[in-house]
Amino acid sequence: MSSLSAWMEARRVEVEEALGRFLPSVVEPPVRLHEAMTYSVMAGGKRIRPLLAIAAAEACGSSAARVMPSACALEFIHTYSLIHDDLPCMDNDDLRRGRPTNHKVFGETIAVLAGDALLAHAFKLIGENAQVEGVPAGAAAEVTALVGEAASSLGMVGGQAADWMAEGRKVSESDVVFIHRRKTGALIRASVLTGAILAGADANVRAALSHYGEATGLLFQIVDDVLNVEGDPVALGKAAGSDAARRKATFPAVAGLDRAKARGQDLLVEATSALGILNGRSGILAGIAEFALRRES
Amino acid sequence: MSSLSAWMEARRVEVEEALGRFLPSVVEPPVRLHEAMTYSVMAGGKRIRPLLAIAAAEACGSSAARVMPSACALEFIHTYSLIHDDLPCMDNDDLRRGRPTNHKVFGETIAVLAGDALLAHAFKLIGENAQVEGVPAGAAAEVTALVGEAASSLGMVGGQAADWMAEGRKVSESDVVFIHRRKTGALIRASVLTGAILAGADANVRAALSHYGEATGLLFQIVDDVLNVEGDPVALGKAAGSDAARRKATFPAVAGLDRAKARGQDLLVEATSALGILNGRSGILAGIAEFALRRES
Repeated sequence: MSSLSAWMEARRVEVEEALGRFLPSVVEPPVRLHEAMTYSVMAGGKRIRPLLAIAAAEACGSSAARVMPSACALEFIHTYSLIHDDLPCMDNDDLRRGRPTNHKVFGETIAVLAGDALLAHAFKLIGENAQVEGVPAGAAAEVTALVGEAASSLGMVGGQAADWMAEGRKVSESDVVFIHRRKTGALIRASVLTGAILAGADANVRAALSHYGEATGLLFQIVDDVLNVEGDPVALGKAAGSDAARRKATFPAVAGLDRAKARGQDLLVEATSALGILNGRSGILAGIAEFALRRES
Repeated sequence: MSSLSAWMEARRVEVEEALGRFLPSVVEPPVRLHEAMTYSVMAGGKRIRPLLAIAAAEACGSSAARVMPSACALEFIHTYSLIHDDLPCMDNDDLRRGRPTNHKVFGETIAVLAGDALLAHAFKLIGENAQVEGVPAGAAAEVTALVGEAASSLGMVGGQAADWMAEGRKVSESDVVFIHRRKTGALIRASVLTGAILAGADANVRAALSHYGEATGLLFQIVDDVLNVEGDPVALGKAAGSDAARRKATFPAVAGLDRAKARGQDLLVEATSALGILNGRSGILAGIAEFALRRES
């Protein structure tokens, strides 16, 4: 096992434990709502957003413990977006990671509310991160503004709306980049910056990590698009080709598979180059960008 | 015009202007999403939550300008909750304030996303309030945690879930108080405390305003329930009796109309008494509680 996989596995275990701890208790009312939130949060996944926040914090001299509430908040926001994306009025998906989607198990009403509650709960955690020892004054408010924008119509939800409106229509490569930068890229960039801000990183380091985060965010989405065309359905937990069947706005659809793969390579170089300023403390971040390109699910 | 109505009207005009200014521009993409957000935010309403935040800030020696981003954030959160409450999978309402509901105009997908975006955008504004001159260090993070919890499954969304699950079932008076305290009360209490925290109020003043906010929040909802039974449909902008037709969990339904009205009187006394600590700087807050009881819509 490489040192990267060992790091990712150790931190993923910490994140899983913290996610369970930060969720509202399923014995508190309304029980059904808390069960629905827990069902989707604890359904597994790569936990890339928390891992990026932690890796950035460590690269800037801080620790996982100091950023854990916000790191988990980013995963709650990601989970809420998946619950709402799967709704009948959006992608109308029955399966997610090989299990029935939230609305299939809990019904549409509770699924909408579980998503809403996870988003609000995420900000409760970000606000409370200000109380963790070693977090600079003002950092939690900065993260609130950053993540608020990344999750808003100027970021993730704007990308989701543009994606939905583009479905089945003729779109250009720049339309796809617009959608991807917002739908996936904005929250991934914000995850990296969350770690940097809570670690007290200076403006130069933040600018570099912003650049790294942007490239890595777009990289993740382009590789998702490529895997949807030629990935292994068993590893993915869903049928390949679903984007094409839905005529989704994807990079391979507008630019072809070869160009999509080449763009992925370019973005890896871009992400890695941005890390130069961190002088050898950025091995994990570089490794995660490489992982984004090489993964098979 | 009383000094209270003059204050409410002057501040309401300021809030309307700020709401328009803080919304994402409708010429920025995705245009349709920004139009949907604007449609519901600018549909009028009493703007009670911003007014309470401003009144609390003024009572604690601060000003409307210092709390305006967070005051508007509270209205964005309230608006998002109305958009989602009206959805086909929730109350399935076609009209709100005499106009077609968001999903009737923009479709269900955009309505869900407009609500999601307003909630995220609200926290962007709360985080950015830290940059306003005169706001104490750490206050914006505290407001983030407070409002995050008030909007979560432990607050507003929890109340909405409990309300939805109670519909058509036999419920007790304590069930109704559970629902009301969360569904409406939590965000109203948080609005009052937002003003106090951003004004740098001490723990004693905060405790008093928390008590005032709790009583006033429950008062607003009980009066809403009473107006739904015997209010004027023209003033309300909707048919009276809709709660009873839906077998909603309301105070008049479980305790009778007389007991509901008496409870309203008691809550006004409770809210007003809690303000004693503010020594004559609390006239507007007392007036808003009285307005909550006496209003006809």
